[in-house]
Amino acid sequence: MAYQELTIEGRNAVIEAYRSGKTIDKLYILDGCQDGPMMTIRREAKKHDTIMRFVDKERLDQMSETGKHQGVIAIAAAYEYASVDDILENARKKGEAPFIYLLDNIEDPHNLGAIIRTANLSGAHGVIIPKNRAAGLTATVARTSAGALNYTPVAKVTNLAQTIESLKKEGMWFACADMDGDVMYDVNLTGPIGLVIGNEGEGVGRLVKEKCDYVVSIPMKGDIDSLNASVAAGVLGFEIVRQRMKKG
Amino acid sequence: MAYQELTIEGRNAVIEAYRSGKTIDKLYILDGCQDGPMMTIRREAKKHDTIMRFVDKERLDQMSETGKHQGVIAIAAAYEYASVDDILENARKKGEAPFIYLLDNIEDPHNLGAIIRTANLSGAHGVIIPKNRAAGLTATVARTSAGALNYTPVAKVTNLAQTIESLKKEGMWFACADMDGDVMYDVNLTGPIGLVIGNEGEGVGRLVKEKCDYVVSIPMKGDIDSLNASVAAGVLGFEIVRQRMKKG
Repeated sequence: MAYQELTIEGRNAVIEAYRSGKTIDKLYILDGCQDGPMMTIRREAKKHDTIMRFVDKERLDQMSETGKHQGVIAIAAAYEYASVDDILENARKKGEAPFIYLLDNIEDPHNLGAIIRTANLSGAHGVIIPKNRAAGLTATVARTSAGALNYTPVAKVTNLAQTIESLKKEGMWFACADMDGDVMYDVNLTGPIGLVIGNEGEGVGRLVKEKCDYVVSIPMKGDIDSLNASVAAGVLGFEIVRQRMKKG
Repeated sequence: MAYQELTIEGRNAVIEAYRSGKTIDKLYILDGCQDGPMMTIRREAKKHDTIMRFVDKERLDQMSETGKHQGVIAIAAAYEYASVDDILENARKKGEAPFIYLLDNIEDPHNLGAIIRTANLSGAHGVIIPKNRAAGLTATVARTSAGALNYTPVAKVTNLAQTIESLKKEGMWFACADMDGDVMYDVNLTGPIGLVIGNEGEGVGRLVKEKCDYVVSIPMKGDIDSLNASVAAGVLGFEIVRQRMKKG
């Protein structure tokens, strides 16, 4: 497990961090800013004895990693990577068949954040990313996850293909997103499932794809090549939701 | 209709621009860059008598509006906004019931680009955006649309509610995306349809929402509030695709 010092930027992200019980060490707030969301943040800060510093816009702009602080930056003792076992335990606790997103080298932090957000809202139990090349849990990822990082465990593994291999021994099935696959409506995705999403440019790597049980595709009707990776993850993820709802 | 000078950045976007028959006035290419996609671009440029300038990285970085030029920037006599009639004509020509995305003040150009990309791949006939406040067709939008802007007409209207009103007279139905709506699987979305997607923070505005025939929601299972706007547009758009495929 790895800890990293992290800044949380933006009102919703800060409010969500408090709601989820995360410890905020310090808050930097735009001096004179007193609208509704900001007063909510101040109340939370008082309740939790968070140190507040009222600073000017220049200072916030300087500190900001995303350029979109919306008048507030929180310093938290940051996101902790979960283990793959934590994710399986999360499913067990909820009494649900495991549902995990596996991201094969997503490099754009906006895509990673949006997929963690989608994973949370589609009821997935966690997200697995590889150690090399891929984006990590930066401030931009935290912000674009819209608070989902506080709830959805993210595990970092050395070798995605090996992780898939060992999870298959636990009874999981793996569906790889690829344009050449079977149309997603025709594939049974209701069991314990890992959804594998590839990198924007290259798709899912060959070694990872070979480990998968299914190759699934979204029916494409247009003129260009492929959906944005986070949109594709959303469309496929909610097809899993649809099939599970129909079954239940 | 409005023209604007436009730079197209990134290899795929430039290749797609050529493939779609767009006129490129000038190409700026990173000196010494000779990989596969770049040679494809050069061949296209020769075929179309495009002026090529080989420049260094500093020059490209300076010209770049997106910061992600990937070694190539094209100058085109830019994207033309379509009219709402162009979009309806697009549907008529294909012999399909109209399917249009309407975006109520999407402000993030990455979201706008991703939604135009999704609109293309879900077989929609066009995208309608309002004149005020919303993001326009900038270089970032063009790049994140991954070439879809060359195929999918985008119309800009003064008043989205009035446009909905007049399209209803043409026999179209409108579905507004909102968390309080009916679950999308339970709503018949197979007819001539406009899918209305709201702004990230505020959702669809009240006046626009009141004009809609249906309010539809994505079944949410997680801890946080809502999906990213472009992911939500993708999930809802492909539910329309699913229902239309099932019907056909």
